[in-house]
Amino acid sequence: MLDLLAGLVVSNTTKIVLLSLDGLAGLPHLKTGQSEMETASLPNLDALATEAACGLLRHVAPGITPGSGPGHLGLFGYDPLRYPVGRGVLEALGIEFDLRAGDVAARGNFCTVDAAGRITDRRAGRISTEVNIGLTERLRDIRLPGVEVLVEPVKEHRFVLVLRGAGLGGRLSETDPQTLGTPLPVRALEPSSERTADLVNRFVAEARQRLTDAAPANMVLLRGFDQLPALPRFPEIFGLRAAAIAAYPMYRGLAKLVGMEVLKTGSGFADEVATLRQHWEGYDYFFVHYKDTDKAGEDGDFDAKVSALERFDAFVPEIRALGPDVIVVSGDHASPSVLASHGWQPVPVLLWSRYCGADPVKAFSERACAAGTLGVMPAQHLMPLVMANALRLTKYGA
Amino acid sequence: MLDLLAGLVVSNTTKIVLLSLDGLAGLPHLKTGQSEMETASLPNLDALATEAACGLLRHVAPGITPGSGPGHLGLFGYDPLRYPVGRGVLEALGIEFDLRAGDVAARGNFCTVDAAGRITDRRAGRISTEVNIGLTERLRDIRLPGVEVLVEPVKEHRFVLVLRGAGLGGRLSETDPQTLGTPLPVRALEPSSERTADLVNRFVAEARQRLTDAAPANMVLLRGFDQLPALPRFPEIFGLRAAAIAAYPMYRGLAKLVGMEVLKTGSGFADEVATLRQHWEGYDYFFVHYKDTDKAGEDGDFDAKVSALERFDAFVPEIRALGPDVIVVSGDHASPSVLASHGWQPVPVLLWSRYCGADPVKAFSERACAAGTLGVMPAQHLMPLVMANALRLTKYGA
Repeated sequence: MLDLLAGLVVSNTTKIVLLSLDGLAGLPHLKTGQSEMETASLPNLDALATEAACGLLRHVAPGITPGSGPGHLGLFGYDPLRYPVGRGVLEALGIEFDLRAGDVAARGNFCTVDAAGRITDRRAGRISTEVNIGLTERLRDIRLPGVEVLVEPVKEHRFVLVLRGAGLGGRLSETDPQTLGTPLPVRALEPSSERTADLVNRFVAEARQRLTDAAPANMVLLRGFDQLPALPRFPEIFGLRAAAIAAYPMYRGLAKLVGMEVLKTGSGFADEVATLRQHWEGYDYFFVHYKDTDKAGEDGDFDAKVSALERFDAFVPEIRALGPDVIVVSGDHASPSVLASHGWQPVPVLLWSRYCGADPVKAFSERACAAGTLGVMPAQHLMPLVMANALRLTKYGA
Repeated sequence: MLDLLAGLVVSNTTKIVLLSLDGLAGLPHLKTGQSEMETASLPNLDALATEAACGLLRHVAPGITPGSGPGHLGLFGYDPLRYPVGRGVLEALGIEFDLRAGDVAARGNFCTVDAAGRITDRRAGRISTEVNIGLTERLRDIRLPGVEVLVEPVKEHRFVLVLRGAGLGGRLSETDPQTLGTPLPVRALEPSSERTADLVNRFVAEARQRLTDAAPANMVLLRGFDQLPALPRFPEIFGLRAAAIAAYPMYRGLAKLVGMEVLKTGSGFADEVATLRQHWEGYDYFFVHYKDTDKAGEDGDFDAKVSALERFDAFVPEIRALGPDVIVVSGDHASPSVLASHGWQPVPVLLWSRYCGADPVKAFSERACAAGTLGVMPAQHLMPLVMANALRLTKYGA
């Protein structure tokens, strides 16, 4: 499909903005029967929905709850099942670690083991990030033959391990048994990862020695081993100068993964919109990320999610005033407040352009969008529609 | 897809009920313009639809009319095109024949041939089941080298032939020329079925001799040769203790085929609901089958189908009172009264749970469900949604 698209791309000067509201979709409040989107006052989004074609996006498959990685890959036009991205890679992207081709990354936990080596706490009592920083210092001194060992603290008990060197392989089993028991040795899941498995097992043995007096964080668990996936590059497939604007590092990392340029911005959405205005002339496509909706949803805070939606809505006129040719508003997955986590529910999408063919939908919500002309569609179908609406695709066949 | 799902399954104590109304979907009455579902008074199903997410299921592909086998496999989460089940196997399941792995089953017809061996009636004038029973007795005496020959009467002119023994193959052509002509010899469609082809041809030759004086039923036609398919087991894929409640043997057989436990029940739907109540604690998932809708549709009896729907509706409160976490109401295919047969039309589905995200649909009918948030979807997408709503799947990717 990406090859087909790439072959149909024609150049144009049209400008595209993708506004990704993280965790956008919600569920009805048990008392009012209205979802966060239905409860919020969204005059600008409703006006845009009235002029737009609307629908619902499914990012991975029906019933499957997407992580933020697969969710955004879908929005960018990639089939998330065809291009899996390991947890280790996402964790590294999340701290803006400069992961390079061939590096093997894993997500690490400090944990507690007893004298017999049995895990008694998989999260080492959620040690503070400060303690974590001290302990990762110790692990950085570990030397392994022929590879560089990179260890970076994340938050609380979490860290990232990266091995860098020639001929490594990321097809490795996890050391985390998921239940209490003893940590498992890493096994290579492919012959090309056998040397890496040995190196990782040596790292774990050394780590145990160096942490022996560091209870409760006296051992490590490693999972989600992976290497940077070889993703087709977004700017080349779609012939777009593409820029990403995101206050959170993980989303900058995902954009970088597909070859978008990451623009420097501030920590709030007002900063992001300012960055958009500032770089308006320099790019054809802007991925602009809004985090607050997901944060509120994951906290299970219905009212906070309503407010986050309303705050976002207030920025819409400013973005429209820039004169984009295509505007998409959607998200990477649902985060319903009643679930207090990501959800599998399809995510409202509106696609606005001069040629979108407005449908009867007059409000931007889960239920209203269900009646839109886009229907319920895989998220990776969005980019071809965006490109068409930007008059950047020629016809297929004569 | 089933592998992906199996990898995401987490345990929970939630309970799921699938209510399968056989041949549920219909078509508008030519006089009133209203379908059976629209004509029936369904207060309990309409209330459930109001609280549920609704849509339409396509079991095989657009325009393809599903048999009950593929229709139910779809509801159970299997792609019916990937897991075909031969007619011989379905016929054997339909009479609750204890078909075993390796057995080759075929669907048989008694037919009439003239002195030159040409078929003059493919159904032998639809002889009575009693005559059939007498004739199958004669065929049971046929002996073939190295295999057991099992012949079971079905109804009127139909019977089941099963060969049991080591090294048999079910990839065989049919003897039924489908038009009038002479019965065809069986050919092996794969080398591993060659010995079986020889054995079947010997059976046919012997059968002809034994039936020579039995006109109009003086010959047999055999088709739909197949062996039990190796289906991934439903309880293992989905991590569910799964039970089937069905008054009709064919549906019990289908459930057994995917590894569900078949619960003993009576002959009416009230018995089935009693069985459901009785076994409520013992299982996580219940497939409950309702036959009357299909029967009326296949009889072309619009009013009887309306009544069948209304009778079903009356049981809904009793089922809800058990406190399921997820309720699905749908069917295995359409059986529109105006067609008096199975139809290719998509089948209404409602999926109710605390997290389903109610959509604007307020009635359980073909047209109302077309506006639901589930959209028109392949039936095999239902199980992932059911699992998600039962909070029995973790997210994909980080």
